[in-house]
Amino acid sequence: MINTVHCHTASASYDITIAPGAWQKAADFPGRKLLVRDANVPNPGIAADGEIVLTPGEQYKTFSAVESICRAAARLHLTRQDRFIALGGGVTGDLTGFASAIYMRGVHFIQIPTTLLAMVDASVGGKTAADLPEGKNLIGAFHQPDAVLIDPGFLKTLSLENLICGLAEVVKTAVILDRDLFALLERESSGCVNSPDFDTLYPELIGRCCQLKSQVVSSDEKEQGLRAILNYGHTFGHAVEQLSQFSIPHGLGVAIGMNTAGLLAEKINLWSPEENARQRHLLKSLQMPVSIPRNFSSDALLEVMRSDKKNDSSGIRLVLPEKIGSAQTFSGIPEALIKEILELSYE
Amino acid sequence: MINTVHCHTASASYDITIAPGAWQKAADFPGRKLLVRDANVPNPGIAADGEIVLTPGEQYKTFSAVESICRAAARLHLTRQDRFIALGGGVTGDLTGFASAIYMRGVHFIQIPTTLLAMVDASVGGKTAADLPEGKNLIGAFHQPDAVLIDPGFLKTLSLENLICGLAEVVKTAVILDRDLFALLERESSGCVNSPDFDTLYPELIGRCCQLKSQVVSSDEKEQGLRAILNYGHTFGHAVEQLSQFSIPHGLGVAIGMNTAGLLAEKINLWSPEENARQRHLLKSLQMPVSIPRNFSSDALLEVMRSDKKNDSSGIRLVLPEKIGSAQTFSGIPEALIKEILELSYE
Repeated sequence: MINTVHCHTASASYDITIAPGAWQKAADFPGRKLLVRDANVPNPGIAADGEIVLTPGEQYKTFSAVESICRAAARLHLTRQDRFIALGGGVTGDLTGFASAIYMRGVHFIQIPTTLLAMVDASVGGKTAADLPEGKNLIGAFHQPDAVLIDPGFLKTLSLENLICGLAEVVKTAVILDRDLFALLERESSGCVNSPDFDTLYPELIGRCCQLKSQVVSSDEKEQGLRAILNYGHTFGHAVEQLSQFSIPHGLGVAIGMNTAGLLAEKINLWSPEENARQRHLLKSLQMPVSIPRNFSSDALLEVMRSDKKNDSSGIRLVLPEKIGSAQTFSGIPEALIKEILELSYE
Repeated sequence: MINTVHCHTASASYDITIAPGAWQKAADFPGRKLLVRDANVPNPGIAADGEIVLTPGEQYKTFSAVESICRAAARLHLTRQDRFIALGGGVTGDLTGFASAIYMRGVHFIQIPTTLLAMVDASVGGKTAADLPEGKNLIGAFHQPDAVLIDPGFLKTLSLENLICGLAEVVKTAVILDRDLFALLERESSGCVNSPDFDTLYPELIGRCCQLKSQVVSSDEKEQGLRAILNYGHTFGHAVEQLSQFSIPHGLGVAIGMNTAGLLAEKINLWSPEENARQRHLLKSLQMPVSIPRNFSSDALLEVMRSDKKNDSSGIRLVLPEKIGSAQTFSGIPEALIKEILELSYE
C-alpha cells in the first residue's frame, strides 16, 4: 500500500499523505491559518485562527466565493507567511487554492480533501480555478499546495453518488495511464460500489491515482504537453455538466464524456471496438451514466466545447484513447464529426 | 537617450520600447486580441478582435472589473494563444495584467501605458493586482507582459495633477536607487511641472526609471528581497490613499508617504536632516503634497498599515532611505514610534 507520494514540480515539492487522521499533520505547519470548509463537512479538529464556510455545489464555484475567502484573510491580517487550509471536495479545494494563489500574490495552502474525487484528482497538481457564467474553470492559477493530507475515513460519510463521481476520475486515470489499474477496477467493481471496501481497496486506488498524477504533473506542471491527457473525458463532460446547469455532477459528466470520447476514438479507428466496449462495461458496472441526455442539442454542446481552454487555433482539442492505459491529445477533428458522435451518444 | 530597455526575469524576457508611435508594435504580436481600454483614453488605432472599456478610477480597481475582462475574453472564445492589450494608466494595466494572469490560468498581455505613473513604474515588472474593500492591491499575481510599448506623446493629454502623480514614482526611484537622477530632478523641476518638456526631459526620465526598475525586477522578480525597496513611500501612502477613500490619488499618497518615511528615517538617525530636507524641498518644488490630512487619525492609518502585504510576523515593514540613492527594508519598528511620526506629519 502506498502511504506517502512525493510530488516534485518545477515550482514546488510536497508530500501527499494517505492515512487515517492525516489531517492532524496540518498542525505541523507554521504561521497563522484560515480554514476554508465546505458547509457539509464538520471540522474533525483542525486548529485555525479563522474559518470561512462555503456553500457547497458547483454553482457556487464563483469569483465571488474566491473574493469572500480573500476578504476573510484580509480581515485576519494574514500575511505571506500564513496559510489557507481547504477542507472539502474539489470545489472547496479549487476555490481555496485559487484564493491562496492570488491573496497577496500568493500564500501557502494545504489540501485536506474529503471526497474521493478530490483525493484521487483535484487536490493533487496545483490546478486551481473558479467558473465563469461562460464556462467551467475559465479562471484560475497554477499554485501547488504545501501538503495534501488524505484521510480515507472521510469516504464513509459520502453518498454513493458522490463516491461514484470520484470513481469516474479513477477510471479516467486507468484508461489513460494504467492498464493494470483498469483490470483491478474490473475485478473489484463490487468492492467499489456494492459493498465499498474503505479499508483496503479505496486506500489502494487513492495511492495509485496520486502516484500516477504526481508523475504526470512532475514532468509537465503547466500543461504544455503530457499533462493535457488528464483532461480525458473532460471536454465532452464539461459541456454536459454546463448544459445540465450543474445538476449532472462533474464525475458523472466525465463518465459520459469518456464514453463519448471512446465512441469517437472507435469511429476514427484509433482504438478497438473491444476496448471501447470494455470501457463502457466498466462505467456501467460502476453505476455510471454513459449517454448524453436527449434534450441537450449537439449545437449547444459544441458551442460550450469551443470555449474550452485547452483549444488552440486549430479548434477543439480532445484527448482520445489508443488502448487501455494510453491516450493522446488530438486537435483539428472536424466539428461535423464531433457533432455526429454527440448525436450517437444520446440516451 | 534610452529607447529600448530589456527586462529579463526568471519567468520571462521582454522589451520596453520608448518611442513615438510605439503602440503600433502591438500589431506585430500573433493571436487574437482583446483591447482593455480606460474610458478616458481614445484608441489611437490599435487593431483588436474585441474591446472592453473600463470606468477610470482607483475605486473601480475591483474583482468585479477583473471578472468583466475575463468574461469578455470568454465570450470571444480567446484561447491561451491569444492576448490582452492594456491601454491606460496603472489601474488599467494592473487589472488587465491580473485578468491575463488568471484567464485560462494565464494568457499573454501587452502593456501600453498612457500615464506617466504607468510608464515609469506600474507597467514594468509584472506586478498585477486588484483592490479589496480591506485594502489596496490585496489580490493579484506576478505575471510579466510580452512587451511594454511607451509612446511619450500620451503625456501631452494628461492633467498637471496626473503628471505630478507619475513624478512621485520618479522621485521614489531616484531616492532609493539613483543619486544622479535625484540631482537631475532638482535641476529640471521647472521642465517637469512649470513648462513640461515632453520631447527630451520626459523620455529621459522614463528611460532611466524603466532601466532601474528592470534591473531590480530582473534580480528579484517575486519580491523576496531587493524588490521590496520599490515600495518606498507606499506603506504610508496606501494608508493615506485608503483613508481618503481614494480622493487622494496614488502618486500624491506616495509623495506624502515618502516625506513621512523620511521623517522616520531622520528620527532614528538613519539619514541626515540635510538629505531629508532636500527630499522635502524636491517634493514641494514638484508641487506635491507632503503632509497627512489632519482628520486622518493615526490609529486608523496604523490599522490599514497592519494589513499591508509586505508585513511579516514581526509587524509592519517599511522601506527607509539611508542616503539619497540608497534605501533598505526594516521591520520590527515599534508601532508607538510610527504613530508619533504619523502625528508629526500632519498638515
